[in-house]
Amino acid sequence: MVSTFEATPNIALIKYWGKRDSKLVLPQNSSISFTLGNSVKTVTSVLFSDRLKEDVAWLNRKKTSGEELARMLLIADLVRQKASISSKVAIASENNFPTAAGIASSASGFAALACAASDAAGLGLNPTELSILARMASGSACRSVLGGFVEWKKGEEKDGGDSHAVQIAPASHWPELHDLIAVAESGRKKIGSSAGMDRTVKTSGLYAKRILDLPSRIAKMRQAIMLRDSQTVFALSMEDSMNMHATMLDTKPPILYLNERSMGIIEAIEELNASEGKLVCGYTFDAGPNAHLICEGKDVAKVKKSVAKLHGIEKFYDCIVGAGPIKLAAKESLLSEAGKPV
Amino acid sequence: MVSTFEATPNIALIKYWGKRDSKLVLPQNSSISFTLGNSVKTVTSVLFSDRLKEDVAWLNRKKTSGEELARMLLIADLVRQKASISSKVAIASENNFPTAAGIASSASGFAALACAASDAAGLGLNPTELSILARMASGSACRSVLGGFVEWKKGEEKDGGDSHAVQIAPASHWPELHDLIAVAESGRKKIGSSAGMDRTVKTSGLYAKRILDLPSRIAKMRQAIMLRDSQTVFALSMEDSMNMHATMLDTKPPILYLNERSMGIIEAIEELNASEGKLVCGYTFDAGPNAHLICEGKDVAKVKKSVAKLHGIEKFYDCIVGAGPIKLAAKESLLSEAGKPV
Repeated sequence: MVSTFEATPNIALIKYWGKRDSKLVLPQNSSISFTLGNSVKTVTSVLFSDRLKEDVAWLNRKKTSGEELARMLLIADLVRQKASISSKVAIASENNFPTAAGIASSASGFAALACAASDAAGLGLNPTELSILARMASGSACRSVLGGFVEWKKGEEKDGGDSHAVQIAPASHWPELHDLIAVAESGRKKIGSSAGMDRTVKTSGLYAKRILDLPSRIAKMRQAIMLRDSQTVFALSMEDSMNMHATMLDTKPPILYLNERSMGIIEAIEELNASEGKLVCGYTFDAGPNAHLICEGKDVAKVKKSVAKLHGIEKFYDCIVGAGPIKLAAKESLLSEAGKPV
Repeated sequence: MVSTFEATPNIALIKYWGKRDSKLVLPQNSSISFTLGNSVKTVTSVLFSDRLKEDVAWLNRKKTSGEELARMLLIADLVRQKASISSKVAIASENNFPTAAGIASSASGFAALACAASDAAGLGLNPTELSILARMASGSACRSVLGGFVEWKKGEEKDGGDSHAVQIAPASHWPELHDLIAVAESGRKKIGSSAGMDRTVKTSGLYAKRILDLPSRIAKMRQAIMLRDSQTVFALSMEDSMNMHATMLDTKPPILYLNERSMGIIEAIEELNASEGKLVCGYTFDAGPNAHLICEGKDVAKVKKSVAKLHGIEKFYDCIVGAGPIKLAAKESLLSEAGKPV
């Protein structure tokens, strides 16, 4: 039977940048995010069937191969192992946002895949097990298997059994919070985040200080979210984002994902906050030039206006806090019962 | 009598970014530079005369006022105080490179001014005293009063009496070394370095780690210069530059002087070094997007070629190691004996 899940990306307010174990994808530090609620999502269908002749996967209607395929099969293999099945697998996955937009699709993609594969194999994994499964393919995906406000506990165990996401608060805790994504023109090809973070851990002298300072920042962020203290959430999210990008620049050779468009957005938000006499918005950047502008619904128009005038801003996605992955009905499936794209 | 001096900028291989005393311009850390030898220079003439009705200064043939004038008079006032004279002063200063090129002219300018003012007042200050005098107007200027390879000792004394430049080695120690300046198109107006560094000291969490790591990096750089160990000099200069720019990005609000042109140059040099199988060049950036490409004379053409093809590189200045300020003959004066520009 085909199982189909929808999942969404998440935006980290305290970032994940650096592994302590590359194979198991165990992070150097805990991170905190909220799962996005609309506008951007991935739908993934999975079928295990003895009628299939080979493992096959489509991404955005294009048949995958090489590393792309291997990463999707990593999840399928773990599920087959847990379920003790040897059937071949068919996977189809689609994002409703252009990959070229520079919005990370791996978190939503591997969260949806973990949920759909587990369900298709009849495993019935709990959220903790799903989070660990998704983590094996993409660290940040482990946060997208849960809705609302999420902490990825770095864990201590060697096998990674305690390195998974937990919900700090459901989406209903703070429905006013938005992530307004400002898609910024990107000039140059950058290093991938996995290779980039490995390099930072190995070569940045400042990175140890980031890791040392993180536990206190995480505790503050957790509390600020519980109190819906927007001022502190915005301030800490800006601080942590720039702190992470600073360690990237301190990497050998240096890594810089931010560009002049990103810096223009930062300046515009700083000006807006100054003119309002309080923080109405916090900016945070992942491994790319797009700005995630964290603000409350009542301020979205104001925030959008302050950056829309800038040169090189191509598009906005206005995302609310989401409830996490959902199982879709059979009619939403991307695969036929024969394992072909529909 | 008019006194006229020529001085040149210097390029820091271990950077100065942050004061522990703003009024006395005492740095958080020692720094190491070499003084540039040709291509870029400042000529400054000074006259103290009772016939002058007011203090007056010209910069690049334009009469100065406000803060620009005040900063030049700061040096003149200190000299008048030391020499116990009350005459008015006339100052004329000219750079042979466009200010818009983004090459810091304050180091060469205030070094030339300190030398010329001291000489015009008949003070006969020694290099240590001249270095302290220049430091009061611009920190990095204290390194340009000496030639060759220079260390600005941060000092410990409260009055800054031990915070001045000392020569590590004369220009003749390593005449093969060049600073090829690649002038990169600059899009946006940036914060000045003095305000910027004050902000970093106050708000960057990573800055303390930079300061902690610097003494060992400085000791290594000093030794590498003595050994003319180009591999280590290049590696440490890249490391320290990016480390400083990382603390800028970790500043609240963040500061980023590097742009996509700068990053393109970094990539080109990384590729060149990789293809050569050794470091033939190190890049270092001050508070601007221009790259200072440190290499030996035999490799200048190769280095230039590898970055000249990039978009947005406007000009090159090829500088050797210089011997420091020199006194010019009366016929080179920028001022008449009446204190008017000639």
